Amino acid sequence: MRPYEKDPKAIYAESFATVRREARLDRFPPGMERLAIRLIHACGMVEVADRLAFSENAYRSGQAALAAGAPILCDCEMVGAGIIRRYLPAENDVIVTLNDPRVPGMAQEIGNTRSAAAVELWAEHLEGAVVAIGNAPTALFHLLELLDAGAPKPAVILGFPVGFVGAAESKAELAANPRGCDFVALRGRRGGSAIASAAVNALAAGLPEEGKLQ
Amino acid sequence: MRPYEKDPKAIYAESFATVRREARLDRFPPGMERLAIRLIHACGMVEVADRLAFSENAYRSGQAALAAGAPILCDCEMVGAGIIRRYLPAENDVIVTLNDPRVPGMAQEIGNTRSAAAVELWAEHLEGAVVAIGNAPTALFHLLELLDAGAPKPAVILGFPVGFVGAAESKAELAANPRGCDFVALRGRRGGSAIASAAVNALAAGLPEEGKLQ
Repeated sequence: MRPYEKDPKAIYAESFATVRREARLDRFPPGMERLAIRLIHACGMVEVADRLAFSENAYRSGQAALAAGAPILCDCEMVGAGIIRRYLPAENDVIVTLNDPRVPGMAQEIGNTRSAAAVELWAEHLEGAVVAIGNAPTALFHLLELLDAGAPKPAVILGFPVGFVGAAESKAELAANPRGCDFVALRGRRGGSAIASAAVNALAAGLPEEGKLQ
Repeated sequence: MRPYEKDPKAIYAESFATVRREARLDRFPPGMERLAIRLIHACGMVEVADRLAFSENAYRSGQAALAAGAPILCDCEMVGAGIIRRYLPAENDVIVTLNDPRVPGMAQEIGNTRSAAAVELWAEHLEGAVVAIGNAPTALFHLLELLDAGAPKPAVILGFPVGFVGAAESKAELAANPRGCDFVALRGRRGGSAIASAAVNALAAGLPEEGKLQ
């Protein structure tokens, strides 16, 4: 077997250097550049940089919300598992309501998926929160419906549902009308929990080369 | 906002129909076809079907191992979080050693990453196990080194490390010489914990249209 890189610092440095060399990053403001680099690092695809939609203040709003102790609302356990707790600036709560025992009954009641019903249980935490959606298009759609109905506004919506039914459409809806919230979204079918977690980690800690990670 | 699909069964059916319509699946034996469909569903990219490397019996071996109660060894918490417990046929243990307190010291000692050191703690569980690597190339590289040194063989290695340093290389090494184990791997930089979990879920439960899921 050929030798391979075993030094975590060298691996990080080479990874991020490759991303900077290959990805088109010039259109991003500084915070968003960090976030884009982390997203690319999480999925191994430099071209996702070209499909990111975002509001100008998304990074700053998300960073400030975390610093102020905002909770992080995730649509599934995997997103929660990918958030690196020691980087959170205020021991922020990471909340996943998908497996709450009330959810299946609520899903029946509202005629929507369990993922959408779980978003109803975010209500008391929504104001100023960081929302990270890495799985279910219906979670993002239903959040937008609740905002239209007057729900409190999160500070930032990190929109990364994935797949073939509703993912592209829900993110297009978010980008077209973010309901007064800051947002980041990856257009199209791609997304996923690793990308959603990476976005939260970027808001919490920037990049390893900035000395906060590792 | 335009109407969107809210019925989970319809969402699943439309998703899998889209995958079958768009992906090149004809080269796969039946079990591997199921696994490929689940991987594509997890990441939203039909073209990953073209980059899958696998041994002929990978699906059967993995399925039989789970049915026989084999543990599932994961390189990170996110992979473990993505495994749908209720589909496991024998309440199989899902083992993640990355955050074991011995790991940082062991990493120092062996001069490798924490992810590689964590693999050393798999030793007593390796024989006949299902290994799911969704993050760290060094975990896969080090597993192959341990196998070269005579470690017990897992039933199947699901190789989906992701990223820019070592991911493509470690999966190419696995595909070129799987050390007598069955395997599935996604060539190149792409991979990730959602894909690794999806591979385990496919071994455990096939596809929703087969009536085991939902």
